[in-house]
Amino acid sequence: MIQANDPARPPIQVACIQFEPKFGDVEGNVARSSELIRAAAQAGAKLIVLPELANTGYVFESSDEASALAEAVPGGRTATAWSALAVELGVHIVAGIAERSGGRLFNAALVTGPDGFIGVYRKAHLWNRENLFFVKGDVGFPVFDTGLGKIGVAICYDGWFPETFRQLALAGAEIVCVPTNWVPMPGQPEGEAAMANTLHRAAAHSNGVFIACADRVGVERGQPFEGQSLIIGTKGWTLSGPASRDRPEILTATVDLDEAGRKDLSDFNSVLSDRRTDVYG
Amino acid sequence: MIQANDPARPPIQVACIQFEPKFGDVEGNVARSSELIRAAAQAGAKLIVLPELANTGYVFESSDEASALAEAVPGGRTATAWSALAVELGVHIVAGIAERSGGRLFNAALVTGPDGFIGVYRKAHLWNRENLFFVKGDVGFPVFDTGLGKIGVAICYDGWFPETFRQLALAGAEIVCVPTNWVPMPGQPEGEAAMANTLHRAAAHSNGVFIACADRVGVERGQPFEGQSLIIGTKGWTLSGPASRDRPEILTATVDLDEAGRKDLSDFNSVLSDRRTDVYG
Repeated sequence: MIQANDPARPPIQVACIQFEPKFGDVEGNVARSSELIRAAAQAGAKLIVLPELANTGYVFESSDEASALAEAVPGGRTATAWSALAVELGVHIVAGIAERSGGRLFNAALVTGPDGFIGVYRKAHLWNRENLFFVKGDVGFPVFDTGLGKIGVAICYDGWFPETFRQLALAGAEIVCVPTNWVPMPGQPEGEAAMANTLHRAAAHSNGVFIACADRVGVERGQPFEGQSLIIGTKGWTLSGPASRDRPEILTATVDLDEAGRKDLSDFNSVLSDRRTDVYG
Repeated sequence: MIQANDPARPPIQVACIQFEPKFGDVEGNVARSSELIRAAAQAGAKLIVLPELANTGYVFESSDEASALAEAVPGGRTATAWSALAVELGVHIVAGIAERSGGRLFNAALVTGPDGFIGVYRKAHLWNRENLFFVKGDVGFPVFDTGLGKIGVAICYDGWFPETFRQLALAGAEIVCVPTNWVPMPGQPEGEAAMANTLHRAAAHSNGVFIACADRVGVERGQPFEGQSLIIGTKGWTLSGPASRDRPEILTATVDLDEAGRKDLSDFNSVLSDRRTDVYG
């Protein structure tokens, strides 16, 4: 296994798959996402990110509906299918999934790789009516030390909290994968780019990490989504995207994860060590 | 005095003065900035923001040079002149100033109003060679409870740290005034908008505060500055600007500071109370 900071570690291609899951059609969503994962892998991607709740769709109307569609991670049908595909293709996949664990539901992300299941992240900050169906994440902000490098995960509204990326960067994350279902924000001027693009570019710059955001498109039960997936470099400049607002797309960028180890902005400045922890409350 | 959350509190006009201080010409910089403050006040501004180190210029070559130009705050010639102007015009001014306090130099901001001197903020995060001349700020992140509302201050590189705005928002700041001297960032693509615009829009959105950034323009001792001053609303959308990269300008926006008390993004979400302090490290 190639380790972080191994001088021989090569750049890797990252892919964000922007598509439109169909509400409630888990079988169809797994089939469609698997086709897209296969296409990305065939084009050279080694790390592939899918949107939030890519197996179920987003706009649940009741806890019963959410519970019926959610599954065990690992072990459920979607997690099993995506993990088998990662093994077959020799890629890492980070994908949004509705998780059922005992009687609790989590808005979660599966992390899986060439050797199978790696772990799960559970969304810490729940958006709007998600609070009716899901439990807040109870796993903190784990960083997964994989064969590609150190991968953090954030899901959608997690990205509204600078603390999310600080936690991950301080724990060594080199790239943060963001399965998301971005929606328009209050006061958003007509035609203005998604606020989420601004938030994640700022987070990449302020933490010296790559960020790969895979959003969904479409309108589901009246709720429009923003698209505009993007892949951001460690200085906050966009490497790929933003994708369109309304079309399925596969974004790719080739990234050297070692860049995330270089936090300097000038001869005197480094974004993590310059923090004034002595005066933060 | 009109207090925050007083239902009678009217919207106010904020002005950011983008201009080009001349290095070492304190007398000329005070005269020029005073003309611009007077023009902004005559046009209706009640809160006026000047750039960082607006009295001295930015690119010091030695501690001796910086020390010779710095002054006591309050009491020095610049602070006295700006404070007298605020009293005369009945406005609040937040202005970058080189402060000498005993043997120490601070990259500071004067806060002054219709009743005279209010306070001083000392830059917490020092950029590049500032570390050779200045001492890191020792006043934390004060919020000044003024006749207009609750004013926080950040100076330039402070804005690279999400912690700055979190501290200020949690302490009740309604508007953060940012005297700044933004410089190009590593890897900045030709013609790309200043990263600082992205950072401050993200901070306004994530904290539900207004942010008013007054940058300088020009090239000083070989160092170019970015201009692109802007005034940002509480949801992160730009109210005025960005200004040009290279011309003096006065930006204005009328803001209802009560909006900073409404942190909601949805029926279920509020940007400060949604923080997962139970899992942040």
